[in-house]
Amino acid sequence: MVRWEPGAAERLQKAALELFATRGFEQTTATEIAQSVGLTERTFFRHFSDKREVLFYGQHLLVQAFLAGVDTAPPGASPIEIVASALRSGASFFPDERRPYSRTRQSVIDQNPALKERERHKLAGLATTLADALRARGVDELAATLAAQAGVTVFGIAFAQWIREDEQRSLADIAAEVLRELLTLTARATASGRGPQ
Amino acid sequence: MVRWEPGAAERLQKAALELFATRGFEQTTATEIAQSVGLTERTFFRHFSDKREVLFYGQHLLVQAFLAGVDTAPPGASPIEIVASALRSGASFFPDERRPYSRTRQSVIDQNPALKERERHKLAGLATTLADALRARGVDELAATLAAQAGVTVFGIAFAQWIREDEQRSLADIAAEVLRELLTLTARATASGRGPQ
Repeated sequence: MVRWEPGAAERLQKAALELFATRGFEQTTATEIAQSVGLTERTFFRHFSDKREVLFYGQHLLVQAFLAGVDTAPPGASPIEIVASALRSGASFFPDERRPYSRTRQSVIDQNPALKERERHKLAGLATTLADALRARGVDELAATLAAQAGVTVFGIAFAQWIREDEQRSLADIAAEVLRELLTLTARATASGRGPQ
Repeated sequence: MVRWEPGAAERLQKAALELFATRGFEQTTATEIAQSVGLTERTFFRHFSDKREVLFYGQHLLVQAFLAGVDTAPPGASPIEIVASALRSGASFFPDERRPYSRTRQSVIDQNPALKERERHKLAGLATTLADALRARGVDELAATLAAQAGVTVFGIAFAQWIREDEQRSLADIAAEVLRELLTLTARATASGRGPQ
């Protein structure tokens, strides 16, 4: 009989991050994570397919936040405006009180190539899902792919800035600024008249 | 004594791709690849650190082609114009006669998650190197990262289009068109006045 442990996934995730950060990702086993919060390895694997996945728990909620932003963009919004709305909504998934957690989590990921790979995989998936949502709003194939990729690039850069030690601004504010910088950059290329041939 | 096999890496790469495409990546060993062109496993591992790497042989030349394009961009070129120059130069690495090879190679990569991961890793490395080169030209941190990421995104989308069965245009032409589409997209967001908040 399977006993349901309320909040088990969250407890396991918190414990895992602590152990990864102090002992190292490779040096920590799923059994140790489970035991540290009084759970069994079996419970661990009921929630997570592997040890890497525990760091990416809840990411479908981030994807949903992006998609909610696509939905709430006004009719007639351009692809980049829709992406801006998705970024605002996605950023709300990371309130300021989450910053210390995100910072520790990222330092664990950055130290492990397999985790970096998983992260790139997740971001690639986010870009694909976002592009699909843009297409579903009638944006054409190429524009949807480009706008979605641009959105994920902006998000990645903004996120890396948000977790810097001295950073105070919200993720939404940083993302908006990075997106504006992208628009400024591309406008400069167009305005020069030399542009890309 | 190590005997130098002229062109061994290229022969191994060609043989590997053929075996991967017909038998599958997982089902092919380094020994089989080596034996199929009359070489030893030892020779294989003198050239490639692992079986995955054989598909990415020569990628430093692609990176160099991008960097050459950064160097030849005129003084005063904007970041996106420098990236456009890098894309033209990078695209020259894929002449039309290479298309069938690239097509087969991509179908092998797309069928194997580990190879997809390695590919994402290589593209991430290209973006980092390109951003460094932009910074070395005096482009500021954020603009360099954004422009380099945009360049790699454009390259990835253009490449996927270039290897489609019915595609006739050169990679350079497709890349220029994808970049123009990105500029059009961002210009629309700026021009609407609503823009990203």
